[in-house]
Amino acid sequence: MSFVFKSTDARRIVWQPRFAAELPDLPFHAWPETGPAEDVRYLAAWQVPDGIGALLPNLEVLFSVGAGIDQLNLASVPGQVKVVRMVEPGLVDGMIEYVLWAVLSCHRDMFSYARRQRQHVWSGAPNRAAGRIGVGVMGAGALGGPVLRALAARGYACRSWSRTPRPLDGVAGFAGAAELDDFLAGADILVCLMPLTEQTRGILNRDLFARLPRGACLINCGRGGHLVQADLLEALADGQVAQAVLDVTEPEPLPAGHPFWDHPRVMLTPHIASSSQAESGVDMVIANIRRHRNGERMVGEIDRAAGY
Amino acid sequence: MSFVFKSTDARRIVWQPRFAAELPDLPFHAWPETGPAEDVRYLAAWQVPDGIGALLPNLEVLFSVGAGIDQLNLASVPGQVKVVRMVEPGLVDGMIEYVLWAVLSCHRDMFSYARRQRQHVWSGAPNRAAGRIGVGVMGAGALGGPVLRALAARGYACRSWSRTPRPLDGVAGFAGAAELDDFLAGADILVCLMPLTEQTRGILNRDLFARLPRGACLINCGRGGHLVQADLLEALADGQVAQAVLDVTEPEPLPAGHPFWDHPRVMLTPHIASSSQAESGVDMVIANIRRHRNGERMVGEIDRAAGY
Repeated sequence: MSFVFKSTDARRIVWQPRFAAELPDLPFHAWPETGPAEDVRYLAAWQVPDGIGALLPNLEVLFSVGAGIDQLNLASVPGQVKVVRMVEPGLVDGMIEYVLWAVLSCHRDMFSYARRQRQHVWSGAPNRAAGRIGVGVMGAGALGGPVLRALAARGYACRSWSRTPRPLDGVAGFAGAAELDDFLAGADILVCLMPLTEQTRGILNRDLFARLPRGACLINCGRGGHLVQADLLEALADGQVAQAVLDVTEPEPLPAGHPFWDHPRVMLTPHIASSSQAESGVDMVIANIRRHRNGERMVGEIDRAAGY
Repeated sequence: MSFVFKSTDARRIVWQPRFAAELPDLPFHAWPETGPAEDVRYLAAWQVPDGIGALLPNLEVLFSVGAGIDQLNLASVPGQVKVVRMVEPGLVDGMIEYVLWAVLSCHRDMFSYARRQRQHVWSGAPNRAAGRIGVGVMGAGALGGPVLRALAARGYACRSWSRTPRPLDGVAGFAGAAELDDFLAGADILVCLMPLTEQTRGILNRDLFARLPRGACLINCGRGGHLVQADLLEALADGQVAQAVLDVTEPEPLPAGHPFWDHPRVMLTPHIASSSQAESGVDMVIANIRRHRNGERMVGEIDRAAGY
């Protein structure tokens, strides 16, 4: 029985000694080295190669080293392999920070002030109280939930939308296709924190933008594939969307000459909203391996049918 | 006995009906109209004209409509007049939002990402945990206290510096000239929220910058007069200060051609960090007039000798 690590060296130098101390009976191999392939029960990776089922025939658990699992190429992973996303406090804190920064930037018109500074214009507008700003978060799970709590603590009028109802104190909850329009109607600032699935690919499109209050802001911290880029450009051009903050794009990075690079109302960041911290990430994986050995359900184990 | 209002019309249309409802026995005059000058006991203003003592000989209380009182030209206000700064929840919330935005922007390198986007560069660095970022707030009173609590709630390593000790849970407190150097040594991000007095004018200078950790960030939400502009330009040029966020300048606006306008490492906002909200501001003033009539101390009453 062994563990294979397939990620960065920066992460490996934190994980490997921790495994040696906490799970001394479990051999640790750093990809491409795997030891005897038939011994491998656990694999931690950001992306997996095609044919992993044939390569590691006795693989039982695949751990994503990131929050998402859409990049794992799951169609190539045999159905009996359990798949576990990364749920760890460093990842959550990073996302709270990013979304809070982006929401504050939109609420307080900071992107406008930056533009005005470049034009040498000194002109301010009165504050709007946070309680009068509707912030809608799509996705209310391991990331969306804590993000919504942090936004509510800052006084924003928060609402969430998810596939199934996810009640949270101080947050107006909406669920399913039937409630999407009502949810969108009150989202002056829309935050995408959903997993990327067949159902959510392209969900940030013209039709959705049209249902937001005029002049809404979009913050995408999900995946680039959630967004229909041409529809966003159109919504920005006609003022339906006033500002976009995009941490994810498809592809990453965007090609040279892509209109987002120089768009005055698009702020791009290079997929840095949040990343799992090596220190807390390895603890989560070790705890999950212990749970799996004891026949317990692991934290972050996905529903392979739902795709997240 | 009467009240004179000397501020914007946008504020007056909120204040005047509230006074009529809450203090119907107190005539309300909108400057330059004052009614019989000898009847005026209360004045609310942002700035007062020279010779106010002669003009309103029986003035008892001067209310600032803003958080600061340095703009009131207090040298011209007779010593027996009580001076009250604005302390109201809207003003505090606005300042928390601004400082949180500025600290998150510095911590998460958002100004760098904006610069890289303009250069079409897609390159991210790993997050540093908030607990490893020292945020030092100068001024720990009506604004600094709540701002520090909000920063501590987000996990920053907070420290405060004030004239006299102001203990706050979760915040390392420093006070007086003797402890300034120790305070500065741990301030990766320095926030100025002090009142402008003879003692604090020009305090943000070369000497102070030299005592910060190299590459520190400066956020000035106090007054333009706290900052020695030439010293900041020098500290930015040699990298001792990596980024400045200035909501206040001297003068406001800056003259055309001032080097801050186009400086890649200076973000300017037009004194919008926080302003008193008409609704909650008028409630504070009415409550203070009642306190004054009952012989009680008013909330926000300043020490005329200390100057704040």
